Amino acid sequence: MKTLYWKDNHLFIRDQTKLPAEVTYFECETYQDVIHTIKTLMVRGAPAIGVAAAFGMALAELAGEDLEKVAEEIKAARPTAVNLFWAVDRVLDAKSKGKSALDEALLMFDEDIQTNKTLGKYGAQVVEDGDTILTHCNAGALACVDYGTALGVIRAAVEEGKNISVVCDETRPVCQGARLSVFEMQEEGIPVKLIVDSAAGRLMQEGKIDKVIVGADRVARGGAANKIGSLMVALAAKRFNVPFYVAAPKSTFDEGISIYDVEIEERDPDEVLYFGDCRVAPEGTEVENPAFDIIPSDLITGIITEDGILDPI
Amino acid sequence: MKTLYWKDNHLFIRDQTKLPAEVTYFECETYQDVIHTIKTLMVRGAPAIGVAAAFGMALAELAGEDLEKVAEEIKAARPTAVNLFWAVDRVLDAKSKGKSALDEALLMFDEDIQTNKTLGKYGAQVVEDGDTILTHCNAGALACVDYGTALGVIRAAVEEGKNISVVCDETRPVCQGARLSVFEMQEEGIPVKLIVDSAAGRLMQEGKIDKVIVGADRVARGGAANKIGSLMVALAAKRFNVPFYVAAPKSTFDEGISIYDVEIEERDPDEVLYFGDCRVAPEGTEVENPAFDIIPSDLITGIITEDGILDPI
Repeated sequence: MKTLYWKDNHLFIRDQTKLPAEVTYFECETYQDVIHTIKTLMVRGAPAIGVAAAFGMALAELAGEDLEKVAEEIKAARPTAVNLFWAVDRVLDAKSKGKSALDEALLMFDEDIQTNKTLGKYGAQVVEDGDTILTHCNAGALACVDYGTALGVIRAAVEEGKNISVVCDETRPVCQGARLSVFEMQEEGIPVKLIVDSAAGRLMQEGKIDKVIVGADRVARGGAANKIGSLMVALAAKRFNVPFYVAAPKSTFDEGISIYDVEIEERDPDEVLYFGDCRVAPEGTEVENPAFDIIPSDLITGIITEDGILDPI
Repeated sequence: MKTLYWKDNHLFIRDQTKLPAEVTYFECETYQDVIHTIKTLMVRGAPAIGVAAAFGMALAELAGEDLEKVAEEIKAARPTAVNLFWAVDRVLDAKSKGKSALDEALLMFDEDIQTNKTLGKYGAQVVEDGDTILTHCNAGALACVDYGTALGVIRAAVEEGKNISVVCDETRPVCQGARLSVFEMQEEGIPVKLIVDSAAGRLMQEGKIDKVIVGADRVARGGAANKIGSLMVALAAKRFNVPFYVAAPKSTFDEGISIYDVEIEERDPDEVLYFGDCRVAPEGTEVENPAFDIIPSDLITGIITEDGILDPI
């Protein structure tokens, strides 16, 4: 089961807001539907929203829309992951060279899986038999078309015959760790434990974590942007000498800017105030809800890409 | 409204598992009732469970129980906060000197409030007008008989006329920050914002936090034990040069042992798997749920006590 697929000139997106309780696909008939799925986190994860955006361009092409204008609308869906901008620009570039948006999107769909498998093989080189690996959020198959980046590295290590255990941070507020990463590891039969985000330091202090591997929404000069909480995990890893890897395809790299100039999305307070339908805090509670962290380069051991393991830029 | 009070030879405990939605008091008629309220977190916070335990001894005394035996049972309710052991031993000692358990419990009840007010005044000396203070979990009135330790410092600073804003970590899994600390600050009219635990690092990186003040369940050689998540907050504070204070009465000190020898309570996986009635993770998910962190001394700027601000031991 893929995160998204193209069929009968529509894009089908696995609705991640309902996982793991329900497995359903949302049918996008228009590029506006695609924007809706990105904004509401039905599809999330930097590589996946890149490919979804490319198919959004394909839907706009089929509808005879002005692709330059549509490109700007799609790019405005979420601000932090650079893959969204990269994908839309790549489709525009392909169009300018006479290719169809749909052909380019389909190519990117195939490339995503291949990229992750290559990245996974490189990453598996740093994973040792018997390792317990902590991950934060979901940089898995569900964050990509398939296979995953951080979880792709774990899959590749397991495919090589290594015994790996995984610890997933639950990843408040949206709980991609508890809902998605745990689910993916269970489906693979890889031993997995769930912890609250704030327990990661304790487990590292106790020597229970051998490596940390997370994804990224952007890699730029000075570090990487990734899900809120990644910074505190990286600080704990540094303190307790646990190698901290970022797994990200080159499409996540944005070498032209400083990581501190990346716009960090501030999301709806209700994500924090509610948990499913359960209200947590009193009425009238003010919330600050930044969706991403900036991880400075000195906390990153290496960046696992499809071109090998690179130093932070 | 106090966290607990003694009336008609029964102990009434404000049920914190239902806050902020419902304000109800649980009536303890026996010492076993008191143990139940401590185990289920109806009453929590090191100073509060100490005083509750003392009243548990008073209930046992009134029932003609063997107090030495009851002392052991009460001490087994929770393992990490030393105040529980301290309070029970103090009542036994008072008994051996001919005092009644009830008189000693009533004295400890009064002392708790006075201790916190003195501690608060010392702590207020390090708080500056305009400060934004981050706190984790609830070291407030609800963690004590009244007034609070970490939140007592904030109350004292506000009473001195300083303008203070507070940021509360939600404090998964039980959400004492979202449910209790936010509630207390709102009741006092002190500006307060709620964040997920993992966002504390980001706010410090952005320069939005001037000080961190948390409570403690035990202070011992080499550091302090406090709610899970405190370690990662302390690491972020160190990185971004934010002073990190522990506010704790001397009854929390256990100078005879190393902090690394303190038993860290492992609590029910369901605290992590559910949020109210909402299930978070898939069926069959394994959980590790340590309730406390150990904060090494080098991360602690000072320990605010009723005897002044002390260096970590």
